[in-house]
Amino acid sequence: MAPPRSFDQRRADALATLSAPEADAWVSTASPDGTAHLVPLSIGWTGATIVLVTVAESPTARNLARMGRARVALGGTRDVVMIDAELVADRALGDTPDQLLDAFAAQSGWDPRAESDEDEFRSFELRPVRLQAWRESNEIAGRTLMRDGAWLDGQQD
Amino acid sequence: MAPPRSFDQRRADALATLSAPEADAWVSTASPDGTAHLVPLSIGWTGATIVLVTVAESPTARNLARMGRARVALGGTRDVVMIDAELVADRALGDTPDQLLDAFAAQSGWDPRAESDEDEFRSFELRPVRLQAWRESNEIAGRTLMRDGAWLDGQQD
Repeated sequence: MAPPRSFDQRRADALATLSAPEADAWVSTASPDGTAHLVPLSIGWTGATIVLVTVAESPTARNLARMGRARVALGGTRDVVMIDAELVADRALGDTPDQLLDAFAAQSGWDPRAESDEDEFRSFELRPVRLQAWRESNEIAGRTLMRDGAWLDGQQD
Repeated sequence: MAPPRSFDQRRADALATLSAPEADAWVSTASPDGTAHLVPLSIGWTGATIVLVTVAESPTARNLARMGRARVALGGTRDVVMIDAELVADRALGDTPDQLLDAFAAQSGWDPRAESDEDEFRSFELRPVRLQAWRESNEIAGRTLMRDGAWLDGQQD
């Protein structure tokens, strides 16, 4: 097992994972009655928020609109970036700032504006509230890098 | 993009993913008030059920005990095995059949019975109800391989 990474290294690695070309996330949401949904989706990372694009009638879109939050994982099961996020904007594609969709398209390689059924898509902008990053069991301690939307800057969790 | 796999190939690939040494799953559960939880966990695959082991006070354990279901993903975001599963047994570690824990330990490489705090762990046995497998967009059609707990044997979804 490799030695545990420092706070700064984990933060740098987490930001690199969020910024990577074709970054995909496992997006977990729940309905009001407690049914969990999970699906892989491409993301755009703006530097402060995660942008998702999916069809309006999907369980993920409906759950985000109703519950306003998601739990989002990036990376592998043994190199995890785990984010609890809150919804800050839920927009029809046509109402989404082009700058946001440009960033999403550039990172994901997919521009939903080019789809023939683009009217069926919505964008969701999510703000990380808590972010954790760990690889193996020796990285469970210190895995919380952000809490209440703020980086902890080396404070141990 | 590779051509879409046949039903039989997808089923064989999904079973290989479930049976692989050190197979990890993304386990998504929800609380009764609609808060989604997501965590990577090692699995044991018995051929019919998925075995998870986690501490009794974890959100996953509490959600499984209360809601009786989970959505479980294996593989990568572009080679997905997605399972909707229902809980068939929730046991203290000491009440879990040794055969089940032997299979779990052999596959995962981790034997929770060897932990000093083994009393804190519970095992959860989950039965797949629906199973889907897809890689790229050309595999969305036909991605449902199992429904109501039964393999579809080549019927298209």
